[in-house]
Amino acid sequence: MEKNRLLYEGKAKRIYSTDQELVVRVEYKDSATAFNGEKKSEIAGKGVLNNEITSLIFALLKSKGINSHFIQRLSEKEQLVQKVDIIPLEVVVRNVIAGSLSKRLGLEEGTGLKESIVEFYFKNDELGDPLVNEDHILTLEIASLPELDILRAQALKINEELNKLFQSIGVRLIDFKLEFGKDADGFIILADEISPDTCRLWDADTNTKLDKDVFRRDLGDLTKGYQEILNRLRGAASHV
Amino acid sequence: MEKNRLLYEGKAKRIYSTDQELVVRVEYKDSATAFNGEKKSEIAGKGVLNNEITSLIFALLKSKGINSHFIQRLSEKEQLVQKVDIIPLEVVVRNVIAGSLSKRLGLEEGTGLKESIVEFYFKNDELGDPLVNEDHILTLEIASLPELDILRAQALKINEELNKLFQSIGVRLIDFKLEFGKDADGFIILADEISPDTCRLWDADTNTKLDKDVFRRDLGDLTKGYQEILNRLRGAASHV
Repeated sequence: MEKNRLLYEGKAKRIYSTDQELVVRVEYKDSATAFNGEKKSEIAGKGVLNNEITSLIFALLKSKGINSHFIQRLSEKEQLVQKVDIIPLEVVVRNVIAGSLSKRLGLEEGTGLKESIVEFYFKNDELGDPLVNEDHILTLEIASLPELDILRAQALKINEELNKLFQSIGVRLIDFKLEFGKDADGFIILADEISPDTCRLWDADTNTKLDKDVFRRDLGDLTKGYQEILNRLRGAASHV
Repeated sequence: MEKNRLLYEGKAKRIYSTDQELVVRVEYKDSATAFNGEKKSEIAGKGVLNNEITSLIFALLKSKGINSHFIQRLSEKEQLVQKVDIIPLEVVVRNVIAGSLSKRLGLEEGTGLKESIVEFYFKNDELGDPLVNEDHILTLEIASLPELDILRAQALKINEELNKLFQSIGVRLIDFKLEFGKDADGFIILADEISPDTCRLWDADTNTKLDKDVFRRDLGDLTKGYQEILNRLRGAASHV
């Protein structure tokens, strides 16, 4: 395996080979995109923030028994992760109505849900990442029914742990998107990132948005909210 | 109960009260609508055709043990049905890729599915009848999980019987939409209609469309295909 070969470039990250076949290096970019790439910007400092936030969260999840591809943070913008085959599904968990759910069901943003909602979106830029149901996923041969059960159960377990974490730092976890991959042995593990790019995070007291909606909706300085999340997470991590 | 009172007017039908509290009269209109009402037309004869087609199909389903709201055809445009509370879900069963499924999954129209797909859409004109998953339906409190299991099982059983029926008259059943309601005792039964307005039906030999896609896609004379379906169904019904 050739070292430092670019294996994949996504909207927010680049993946490089390392000298170990089963390990890759992730480089977080400063690019911000929304609405399936229609809105784009470079936001200095975002990559550094998301790298550290994701690293802290994945480490915390590991301490709670939830494995992910994360191995270690390497530098400001880089982390080492296990190489996985990404399952082309965005697994979304929602605790409070916001964003596309509000539009889909005609329910007001900010309304708490009695039971969390899990959604699967087919990761496909050309199709605009459409919502899919289990029958669609079986037709696309993306995952089997037992695998979907694992994804759902894992997503809800992660939701439980993230809810505890964010509550402890005065943040409401509105919703978030996860991606999973299969490792070399075929086991499903959490992958990608968990950051204000992939979560809706509102200050518990003021409902101020501390996430990518600030960019999507032109609400001001994006990195301010991300920095606030990182500062609070650092505090929480120091108590673990 | 006041007789002949208009209880409801939909895009394709009017519902009137009768002298029996639990029975209503359905009048089929000649209106054709598509794309959530954006495309509209009056097509002389459509109501008569859909009334007779639905009556034949519901009678046939009953002979196979599948209950519906249908009681009897009253006149060219009218039928008597049990009064039900409609569950605001469109239950779609698909055997072949077509229409919105082709767009959603990026798969070619006309491709047969190994396993039938069941989809639930939230019946809500304002929201454009969005696709919903089971969690959405629970949130909307439209149906419980056991009720969703009933809807799915009923839809697949109806698919089995409709497939046999249409195969016997040289027609491919591509996909169709069902609506269900709850009767006075709270039992879930099939309601609404089953007609070329609610099914995609292609001639088995030529793949000629004999359904509402002729209207949606401006392919010619709509009633010609509907009349063809009716003629073939009459032949099949005479052999039952």
